[in-house]
Amino acid sequence: MDLLAIVQTLAIECCLKKDQPVLLGLSGGPDSLSLLDMMLRCEYLVIAAHLDHKLRKESQEEAEYVRHITEEMGVPFSSGSVDVLTFARENKLSVEEAARKARYQFLFEEARRCKAQAIAVAHTADDQVETVMMHILRGSGMAGLKGMGYRSNKHEWDLKIPIVRPLLGIWRAEILLYCKERNLTPVFDQSNRDMTYFRNRLRHDLLPSLEQYNPKAKQGLWRMSRILEADEAILDGVVEKVWKDCLITQVPQSVTLDHEAIKTLPAGLLRRILRKTISVLLHGERDIGYEVIERGHEFVTNPVGNRVELFAGLNLFLVGERLVVARKEEDIPLGNWPQTQNQTAIELVIPFYYELDSGWALAGSFLSPLPPGERFDNPYQAWLDADRLKFPLVMRPMYAGERFQPLGMSGQTVKLSDYWINKKIPRLARKNWPLLFSREQVIWVPGHQPAHFCKLTEKTERVLHLQLIRP
Amino acid sequence: MDLLAIVQTLAIECCLKKDQPVLLGLSGGPDSLSLLDMMLRCEYLVIAAHLDHKLRKESQEEAEYVRHITEEMGVPFSSGSVDVLTFARENKLSVEEAARKARYQFLFEEARRCKAQAIAVAHTADDQVETVMMHILRGSGMAGLKGMGYRSNKHEWDLKIPIVRPLLGIWRAEILLYCKERNLTPVFDQSNRDMTYFRNRLRHDLLPSLEQYNPKAKQGLWRMSRILEADEAILDGVVEKVWKDCLITQVPQSVTLDHEAIKTLPAGLLRRILRKTISVLLHGERDIGYEVIERGHEFVTNPVGNRVELFAGLNLFLVGERLVVARKEEDIPLGNWPQTQNQTAIELVIPFYYELDSGWALAGSFLSPLPPGERFDNPYQAWLDADRLKFPLVMRPMYAGERFQPLGMSGQTVKLSDYWINKKIPRLARKNWPLLFSREQVIWVPGHQPAHFCKLTEKTERVLHLQLIRP
Repeated sequence: MDLLAIVQTLAIECCLKKDQPVLLGLSGGPDSLSLLDMMLRCEYLVIAAHLDHKLRKESQEEAEYVRHITEEMGVPFSSGSVDVLTFARENKLSVEEAARKARYQFLFEEARRCKAQAIAVAHTADDQVETVMMHILRGSGMAGLKGMGYRSNKHEWDLKIPIVRPLLGIWRAEILLYCKERNLTPVFDQSNRDMTYFRNRLRHDLLPSLEQYNPKAKQGLWRMSRILEADEAILDGVVEKVWKDCLITQVPQSVTLDHEAIKTLPAGLLRRILRKTISVLLHGERDIGYEVIERGHEFVTNPVGNRVELFAGLNLFLVGERLVVARKEEDIPLGNWPQTQNQTAIELVIPFYYELDSGWALAGSFLSPLPPGERFDNPYQAWLDADRLKFPLVMRPMYAGERFQPLGMSGQTVKLSDYWINKKIPRLARKNWPLLFSREQVIWVPGHQPAHFCKLTEKTERVLHLQLIRP
Repeated sequence: MDLLAIVQTLAIECCLKKDQPVLLGLSGGPDSLSLLDMMLRCEYLVIAAHLDHKLRKESQEEAEYVRHITEEMGVPFSSGSVDVLTFARENKLSVEEAARKARYQFLFEEARRCKAQAIAVAHTADDQVETVMMHILRGSGMAGLKGMGYRSNKHEWDLKIPIVRPLLGIWRAEILLYCKERNLTPVFDQSNRDMTYFRNRLRHDLLPSLEQYNPKAKQGLWRMSRILEADEAILDGVVEKVWKDCLITQVPQSVTLDHEAIKTLPAGLLRRILRKTISVLLHGERDIGYEVIERGHEFVTNPVGNRVELFAGLNLFLVGERLVVARKEEDIPLGNWPQTQNQTAIELVIPFYYELDSGWALAGSFLSPLPPGERFDNPYQAWLDADRLKFPLVMRPMYAGERFQPLGMSGQTVKLSDYWINKKIPRLARKNWPLLFSREQVIWVPGHQPAHFCKLTEKTERVLHLQLIRP
């Protein structure tokens, strides 16, 4: 095999530097042993790390053999062992998942300890094709179809140390030839034995049968993954920009987005914005099902109610003209509603412009006559008969037990606390919601309804126009 | 089957209107017969069109039966026949390709004749999955993986009339049930018989075997195609914008792009810009191989020579700081080089600024002393010993047989015609290339080299600075 290709891959695709150590996950199989040999020949500072999974009784012996090899090669070696079966049982994981978790935990801990610039693993082109084919069988989107990357981050394990895969463009057959050429004696093909039943069948049945349709099917799949990776990089850039355009606030518990901005995006972009939002709240989680995104998509374009469940406890809430992704109502930032920190009554002299929290404001002025064609169903505005009111008006949050007579409900009042529940306003937002009063009677619940008693009639001579101004 | 779903698909995905005719390709098989029945129930104006491929001896009989069905249903019918075998032989096509070409030619001619808003064809979800799987086996990029669309244009056949595929989301099994429910009697499953060997194996062997890995593999593949179609739409938008940013000129024979702008794009975008450029020159051709694009990509990022072959006779030329895609050198727009239409000599008095064609210009001034750190290897500028020259200078194209002494070639001259060949300047650009003369001796070939006899020396007291200014 041409060492020049690997020299380039290590430097350009994997971005490895020669003056900082690289931690190499060394199972002792042909792939990782070849990678170790190549990296040493290219003069990288390699530290080999081996984890004994204790899944077979020979495993300790094998770990000893791997240590012996590294000693012969003069490579720093660190080893660990974990009882994967117990680990699986305790964490309710499949054996495969447990092994994977234990391995990553070990590798990242070691990498941090020895200040490695990266963790190198020995996935080959065959592994890549198998991974892509698994995603195809699952009906994955582009993120899955592009497969693994030469250099990628696993933020759930470490924010800085990347995983590099220098052998991603080299086929297993080439690796076996390389072992022969270089006189390397792998312990055994651990990767082959550890494989799950599914991957095993894929490797030994499905992929060979695809090659009967097209002898270059595997090369084709590999190439496809590279094309899609490049396309995905372009899309990531677009999504990043559009996401910022749609974003109103981002805090650890919630992300607030502009409903109108998202609603008008092309479907593909809308889905990706939802996916990114969920991923952000779940610390980089990538495995978010298509149905989850479709549920969100449906709700954004055609909301029914004011909440839809997404995934992993996250909900998508419709709050006025905003969309909030959060676990529970209490996590929705209060800045999404008009709020006043002033518990005491404030007198408002017409005309007024009163600033509330988080960029909201209330305004009031007299109008005479009414502007023609004004629509009265806008909850952010109210038109009242000024002659039914006593001035100055007063603004304050509600007191316990206070009542209100909404427009259209003649001769009847409702408890404000029931009104809130009815309007599906979360408890936390009710306490400091600013209300407007005349003679201790509610005349407008900003963002909802005016009171019945002061509605416009044919006899109205002077109109009071109130506005709730959004941030 | 739920007619509501198809109602929505026809109106929303296929964008069909009820007041204009739709031409429906009716083989008489279950798929197209069901589609005809559905569209009639949804009250579309359908014209059925059947082409007899004359590939089997029953075909005429079948054509008669299809005519009979449409008569019974009261649908306008138009038919045609073509001897596909002869057509294939004459045009050196495979039988399958010939059948496909003949069919589209017939359908688009009929559609234009009856002013149809669209051509409806009866591809099902199964056809979609098979198409996608074929692309996967070939290692296609996204354009292939997204499969067919509900509504798409085939610009090679018609710039306006689209192809619509209302059954793209309906599985063949559902169609067969529908035929039963609605008492439809298809002639035979033509699609099944006409299938190529490859597609047949895919349908009957490969796809069922994928379902052994995941019972929902087909659904997964179908969904994947929809996701990728939406993603592709986003990318198309990005590419359209970036292409315009890179474009210098576009004429039917060539596209000229800014080399610097393309070179610095991310790989995926660079590839897509090349693909789009080739496609534009080939009237919407989409089947452009990965190797073609990779060859172009390599040349753009690391040009060797000044030309690389792309595809279908197209070449990618490096012309100064521009990239031109064209068939032959003669198709490169002359505006890519400095050109003067003035065949007579023009006297230039220092300082001068002389405008050439297409936004190019020449300028000259005296300098004393030289600006520090000036680089002398810029072919767009020349610094000469003014005391070796006679003023005013003269500008004109070359005469036949004229000679030149390039910088560094002391005591020797070359024929300008040989010089041009050496510099790989196309013949057409040589004739009107402006040259600068003093006493009928070439002192500078703008864009290339100054003459040796007037070079700067330690004794130079007065410097003449000449510039070729690009558009």
